Amino acid sequence: MIKTETITYEGPGGTYEGTISYDDSIEGPRPGVLVCHAWMGQGAFETEQAEKLAALGYVGFALDVYGKGVRASDADRAAELMNQVASDHSVLLARLEYALELLKEHPLVDGDKTGAIGYCFGGKCVLDLARSGAATLGVVSFHGILGAPAGAEEPFINAKVLALHGWDDPLATPEQAREFAEEMTKRGVDWQLHAYGNTVHAFTLPTANDLDHGICYQPDAARRSWQAMENFLEEVFA
Amino acid sequence: MIKTETITYEGPGGTYEGTISYDDSIEGPRPGVLVCHAWMGQGAFETEQAEKLAALGYVGFALDVYGKGVRASDADRAAELMNQVASDHSVLLARLEYALELLKEHPLVDGDKTGAIGYCFGGKCVLDLARSGAATLGVVSFHGILGAPAGAEEPFINAKVLALHGWDDPLATPEQAREFAEEMTKRGVDWQLHAYGNTVHAFTLPTANDLDHGICYQPDAARRSWQAMENFLEEVFA
Repeated sequence: MIKTETITYEGPGGTYEGTISYDDSIEGPRPGVLVCHAWMGQGAFETEQAEKLAALGYVGFALDVYGKGVRASDADRAAELMNQVASDHSVLLARLEYALELLKEHPLVDGDKTGAIGYCFGGKCVLDLARSGAATLGVVSFHGILGAPAGAEEPFINAKVLALHGWDDPLATPEQAREFAEEMTKRGVDWQLHAYGNTVHAFTLPTANDLDHGICYQPDAARRSWQAMENFLEEVFA
Repeated sequence: MIKTETITYEGPGGTYEGTISYDDSIEGPRPGVLVCHAWMGQGAFETEQAEKLAALGYVGFALDVYGKGVRASDADRAAELMNQVASDHSVLLARLEYALELLKEHPLVDGDKTGAIGYCFGGKCVLDLARSGAATLGVVSFHGILGAPAGAEEPFINAKVLALHGWDDPLATPEQAREFAEEMTKRGVDWQLHAYGNTVHAFTLPTANDLDHGICYQPDAARRSWQAMENFLEEVFA
């Protein structure tokens, strides 16, 4: 049975609240996967993905980089929160790294087998985590922001990288996809980018339906991207 | 048990010879998949892919577009043969369509459930087959030439399209990948392109080892692309 627990933790700069999901019929340590939230903050969608990861036999940890109770209920507030935390690369990174350490130390997690997935802004989070050289095996970005943080150091990238990308995403244009490919190649990363046609931003989010602004659920891309993630995690945890 | 039969057939403009593979422990009609050969002509590699398709429960038909006994043993001859058949789009298309009809009429094939995969030049073949509006459910190009044939008609494209692509392929540059994406989008196709980093042309071919010319086996991309094809065929035949 899939269990989900709320976890409140002290981290860099404050208190955070996420959820941890696991299958309690599985014994012993297993791979663990961070779920990095979209710009609204950690919520029901991210917890659901952590539960789906638990159903695959992993521990899913839907982390929080905004702070306990700090959630947006509209786009303006979401943009404000996102820009706040993203404006200082080291602040965001410290919160991500802290969550990764928490995951590794969890009694149900095999600390040598971790990964991270993320959505929209959370896609940027997992890519930045990989870019920082974090000791994790693989990261998966779902309709993530692809651009690299300016001025960040460029250590060796340990993680394999999979970007799942809507070709018509206005927040990650074909030109940005190409720059991302060039960046990953230059840095010697084992990377893949899956481009889905007729697909815009936020394609995994069932509630996204603002096609005028290039934000819309696309069930085919949602299903295919999850399948690609499953295959990828199987590979990196093998 | 997987059975492979040589099939010699009269088609447009001559006699052709390919192989058909199936699992003889499966009863009744099943989906069928064309395997379109690389520029050297139908050979052991393509037959092996047909056998792997048979192991997945399909009928695999490694077709022949050059003609019986017409095979290259070096690159110069391969280029000559390829350019000959590719120089007249309608000639190539007729041979592909004929093979698709043969496949559909095969007693072990469910004619409503066909697809096509192809390698290098064969990737171009399956994409051109899709572009022609052929009545088939899905096509998969492995390190295929992505450019559209000049002056061809542009009917409705029935097939779903998956291009499995080495980002560093000199025969299908990032610019050509982008043009392909734009073409597919403009024509309303259900398309995907999976780009593999650090991967050049011919990444599925174990014998390819000419990195100076951008032609080289890449086992990760080979494995991942086959997995992607498996998922895709499962989807289109569901």
